[in-house]
Amino acid sequence: MTPVTYGIAIFPSKEIQDEANSYRKRYDPRYSLVPPHITLKERFEASADDIKEIEQACSELAKNLDPFDIHIGRVSSFSPTTHTIYLRVDDHEKLTYLNEKMHEEPFPDNREFKFVPHITISQELSEEEHSDVYGSLRLLSFDLHDTVDRFQLLYQLEDGSWTVHETFKLGEG
Amino acid sequence: MTPVTYGIAIFPSKEIQDEANSYRKRYDPRYSLVPPHITLKERFEASADDIKEIEQACSELAKNLDPFDIHIGRVSSFSPTTHTIYLRVDDHEKLTYLNEKMHEEPFPDNREFKFVPHITISQELSEEEHSDVYGSLRLLSFDLHDTVDRFQLLYQLEDGSWTVHETFKLGEG
Repeated sequence: MTPVTYGIAIFPSKEIQDEANSYRKRYDPRYSLVPPHITLKERFEASADDIKEIEQACSELAKNLDPFDIHIGRVSSFSPTTHTIYLRVDDHEKLTYLNEKMHEEPFPDNREFKFVPHITISQELSEEEHSDVYGSLRLLSFDLHDTVDRFQLLYQLEDGSWTVHETFKLGEG
Repeated sequence: MTPVTYGIAIFPSKEIQDEANSYRKRYDPRYSLVPPHITLKERFEASADDIKEIEQACSELAKNLDPFDIHIGRVSSFSPTTHTIYLRVDDHEKLTYLNEKMHEEPFPDNREFKFVPHITISQELSEEEHSDVYGSLRLLSFDLHDTVDRFQLLYQLEDGSWTVHETFKLGEG
């Protein structure tokens, strides 16, 4: 069996997803591949056996962590590293903790960048487009609150889109 | 709070989703809104209180049902009722059972059509397009097997796309 590509993410509330989509549909060519999300762990490959262990580890992580509140206040950009523009989720120790744990055994350590909690709203624009779009979006201010009470393990289909494999609810066994 | 629109579906294996998507990307304008799926319960509205009861009922239904095997052997169409073409999932008592239970309290009874387990691969074509596409797809034969071990509760975003709210695993509490 070919290894499958997985990822782990939080879908914020419908209200925040709708807000993010209002930008994504204009500025993100990958808009239709997955709903708006906070990536906890970037894409990684796993065999059927590996993923069972990882599911078990996700379940333990979720069970031992109570739901927590997050806040989004502004737009930022990863430029010049990439042209990705995002809703910046304020740092939260539980987000950092989940991200850390998801790069320790039995999870593969596939970290490439420092963890910055965010919801992508624009990517793959040219330098000039990025400059224009970021120039206007950075002026927006947000005051979005949400409670994180679950995260999801997803896998990628051949066309690049993502399907949810499992939901892990925080504080439940 | 405005009621949210929910639906309940089974995502078949990645292999079957990839197969279905090879047709959907050509013949289904709603392709990008949700991964390929077997609908167990069509869209319904629910308040925050209602959905808690429904989640609890889904959890009970899942816990009391062991995983089961399904088979897909052919393509069919709902024509002339609609121009929807689909992979026909063979009838299975557990699919019928889940669908029945999801139209009894506390679920709303929003049934419009007889339950026919299927994965849509084409819809919203003109009569002529439907006729052409179905004429060629109906000649295909399939022998796809899968094990259903979970179903998912989804909600719809403003742009028409769907996000998974929760996964219910069969035979687990």
